[in-house]
Amino acid sequence: MDRVQLSHGSGGRLMHQLVSDFFVPAFDLRTLNDSAVVDFPSSGRIALTTDSYVVSPYFFPGGDIGLLSVCGTVNDLSMVGAKPLYMTAGFILEEGLPIDDLKCILASMKAVSEKIGLRIVAGDTKVVEKCKGDGIYINTAGMGVVPEEIDLSPKQIRPGDKVIISGSIGNHGMAVMAERSGITFDPPLISDVCPLNSLVDAMLSATRDIRVMRDPTRGGLATTLKEFANDSGCCMMIHEESLQVRSAVQGACDLLGLDPLYVANEGVLLTIVTPSAAENLVAAMRKTEAGADACIIGEVKETPHRTVLLKTAIGGSRIIDMLSGEQLPRIC
Amino acid sequence: MDRVQLSHGSGGRLMHQLVSDFFVPAFDLRTLNDSAVVDFPSSGRIALTTDSYVVSPYFFPGGDIGLLSVCGTVNDLSMVGAKPLYMTAGFILEEGLPIDDLKCILASMKAVSEKIGLRIVAGDTKVVEKCKGDGIYINTAGMGVVPEEIDLSPKQIRPGDKVIISGSIGNHGMAVMAERSGITFDPPLISDVCPLNSLVDAMLSATRDIRVMRDPTRGGLATTLKEFANDSGCCMMIHEESLQVRSAVQGACDLLGLDPLYVANEGVLLTIVTPSAAENLVAAMRKTEAGADACIIGEVKETPHRTVLLKTAIGGSRIIDMLSGEQLPRIC
Repeated sequence: MDRVQLSHGSGGRLMHQLVSDFFVPAFDLRTLNDSAVVDFPSSGRIALTTDSYVVSPYFFPGGDIGLLSVCGTVNDLSMVGAKPLYMTAGFILEEGLPIDDLKCILASMKAVSEKIGLRIVAGDTKVVEKCKGDGIYINTAGMGVVPEEIDLSPKQIRPGDKVIISGSIGNHGMAVMAERSGITFDPPLISDVCPLNSLVDAMLSATRDIRVMRDPTRGGLATTLKEFANDSGCCMMIHEESLQVRSAVQGACDLLGLDPLYVANEGVLLTIVTPSAAENLVAAMRKTEAGADACIIGEVKETPHRTVLLKTAIGGSRIIDMLSGEQLPRIC
Repeated sequence: MDRVQLSHGSGGRLMHQLVSDFFVPAFDLRTLNDSAVVDFPSSGRIALTTDSYVVSPYFFPGGDIGLLSVCGTVNDLSMVGAKPLYMTAGFILEEGLPIDDLKCILASMKAVSEKIGLRIVAGDTKVVEKCKGDGIYINTAGMGVVPEEIDLSPKQIRPGDKVIISGSIGNHGMAVMAERSGITFDPPLISDVCPLNSLVDAMLSATRDIRVMRDPTRGGLATTLKEFANDSGCCMMIHEESLQVRSAVQGACDLLGLDPLYVANEGVLLTIVTPSAAENLVAAMRKTEAGADACIIGEVKETPHRTVLLKTAIGGSRIIDMLSGEQLPRIC
């Protein structure tokens, strides 16, 4: 039996076998039924997050849907300053999914979650008929603990603050798009998908003057900046020449008529910090793998309110809005 | 715009609008990004659970996929003795889903979660192309707190214990099957989907001698009994005449060649309790809405080990195994 069958989802013997053969060895499941019961630190608040992953194709240069699902969960927890502790994973498998593909995906999840020290404690598997899914969808929920003294929010953004990004943009979205469309680039496009928890640890150790952090995934950097502008009431002024876009990503964007500002990232974070802490923070970020290319890309202005302004290299400026309409479906 | 479009999933303005128009009013979302940060009782352990819901059709007699997703989550938490506190919900919408259907489903989730006092604090929405999904899939994760003194497990089952069920079996699975196949029955088949947390509260208040509780969903009563037998090493001896199967359910099962023992339930729990506590527990269960038809259906024997035996009305007995192969796909 080398493909998933409908009967793998019926709750009977085949499902039990699928779970015990593949899911139990990959995860740290506390139970095969109902709820996992876990210990938890008695101080601090709890961070909860959920995401569904429907990326197409489910294998792409630099990763797969399994790696993406763990990293996405870890990163959402990390962005509020939480230490990721536990994760759940629900799988919606399409009838006919090659079992070997499932094994690869589970192996990715196991490897990265073990590296991070994140425990996958509860899971669920459903199977849908052919053409009612697309190979595999994964939904995760993550739980972490936020130290009492940490309270990050875009509402804390003030005029004069600096805007910092941890690396180059557009890598994930364009790697998936290229793989999907069968176009190859030289040098190849590779997703930036990676866990950001170590980078965040280094940042929180370096300064307590961080206002907010966020990973610009769907909707890209532009959408996250616009959310910050809306939530703070301030203006985000970004210097175009400080943004890093790899040449292959820029080339692919030009070819497909896309703007890298709106392309999804899965291993980049955007942070806003007090002006006095900015240089030290960039230095601390650059000492980590995920933050090696960190740099200041702009600053917060009081006006125009709720606006993102991109200052171009030749001295002009353009207003950046949220992504409107469809750009890149099923990128995560 | 009366149908979901791919651009509703792209992370841009349309997605923000969908979320703020429909999801924010329905839920108690703490953030529209990253992680929700919540308070938590400092004593007790934490229960975590996840489930994906892919039921077809997503409206069925007695409920819909939204009600099912909240009840399923609450029930999984309740089965380990946890008080349900928080829930996350991830939605995978198929392009073309009628917005009115989505609104109905969210309204169901809001109504039942508010009744229970469960807060839906984080969510996610993805949209997939036509024929890559089936209207709507929902994945939930639930979090609750387990009082220190409660530790339910099939490993605590002992010979002599009594087996109790809270109501009649097969109602959910057959209601969904009938709706899917377009067969009508008189009286109509209605799903039993309901939250079991109040029933569990009443049970835990009545006695501390409960060994284990479980809701026999996919795979039905037979599969749950077999899990208890395997995990305890004991024999579950069940008296066939004590099982309640509504006449319409039995009729539908006969017509479709199904055994109600293997049909999914969504508002029934099975519990195993010390012999001395059994009668009192049944009396306490019967005072609740969900447990009105509770009764003792059998007892635990030492041998044959890891076996479920069904004693028939005429004095014979047959061995009940797990569901083998496919019976009822996409019932939950």
